[in-house]
Amino acid sequence: MHKGLDALSFLLGRCSVGPKYLEAPAPDDGALCVMTEAALRAPDHGGLVPFRFALIREEAARQRLADLYGQAALAAGKDAEAVELDRLRALEPPLLVAVIARIDEAHPVVPAHEQWMAVGGAVANFLNAAHMLGYGGKMLSGAKAQAPEVAAAFCAPGETLVGWMVLGTPRKRMNPKPGKPDAGDVLRPWAP
Amino acid sequence: MHKGLDALSFLLGRCSVGPKYLEAPAPDDGALCVMTEAALRAPDHGGLVPFRFALIREEAARQRLADLYGQAALAAGKDAEAVELDRLRALEPPLLVAVIARIDEAHPVVPAHEQWMAVGGAVANFLNAAHMLGYGGKMLSGAKAQAPEVAAAFCAPGETLVGWMVLGTPRKRMNPKPGKPDAGDVLRPWAP
Repeated sequence: MHKGLDALSFLLGRCSVGPKYLEAPAPDDGALCVMTEAALRAPDHGGLVPFRFALIREEAARQRLADLYGQAALAAGKDAEAVELDRLRALEPPLLVAVIARIDEAHPVVPAHEQWMAVGGAVANFLNAAHMLGYGGKMLSGAKAQAPEVAAAFCAPGETLVGWMVLGTPRKRMNPKPGKPDAGDVLRPWAP
Repeated sequence: MHKGLDALSFLLGRCSVGPKYLEAPAPDDGALCVMTEAALRAPDHGGLVPFRFALIREEAARQRLADLYGQAALAAGKDAEAVELDRLRALEPPLLVAVIARIDEAHPVVPAHEQWMAVGGAVANFLNAAHMLGYGGKMLSGAKAQAPEVAAAFCAPGETLVGWMVLGTPRKRMNPKPGKPDAGDVLRPWAP
């Protein structure tokens, strides 16, 4: 039980760590493998594994992603300075991992919303595991993930680009932000 | 780091524990509070908390749920024996917690699929925390959760009943089932 309480303190202490608070080293291949195994242990009705992850680490992949971010920023009407800032979002994080959902909208047993929940559980556990290994990170999405030219570079037909997990080592100890509701507001007795 | 590796072993060792493998005691109020706090620490874009949990513990709530399960079974054309089996699904688990999603389909920043991911991350963390505290459980959904008379008993307008988490103490040590893909099949380098 003592080890369980220690484990719980990791779960309760995890928080999103954004790019400006991340530095090298990023998770290596061994850490990424364990983090992915944790993702595969999240609840997943029917065991459909409705997701895959794409690692963006090598220089060529970084530059290609920076170009895509730049194109999306231009298409959104941003000025040259904002375009350059968006390009840097692909180049500065120690590591990026794209999250790609593969939802079967016509599945006979598992509704699409439960498949999306499985994707969310996988991302939660991937980031939980990163935190337990001493790393930090955050899921980033937004307009870039929905830009057609960006999505097309990651997705086969029928897939959806959710966004990117940025990963690295937190520059300082981070704590969860306050502002969430109390547990007692979220879990209440059913009063039918 | 040592404690982090212990924590990781809980994350990797968690698995679904179905009703027939669960016995008393169920998580008490203190445990449920911590499990809900863990749910609130999962990634949640915009901090929308697009979910709430409804505890089904008291006898009256159990009997009401059994009646609803029975009605849904009758409406689905099941015979008397099957109806009674479905009623028992509300009475036998040591504890049930309904999961109710509150998705804002028209949110200006956070797409509905990301809100569903937040619900999935919350469920994953709730069950992760249960496992770390020595409990076990499983998310159950299926046709019952979609039966209009059942959903109406849990949901306000705009809400969706996802299903129920059954919770208790595992009768024996459970291990994750094999059959998931390898991490290396799920996480691959991006080759744009």
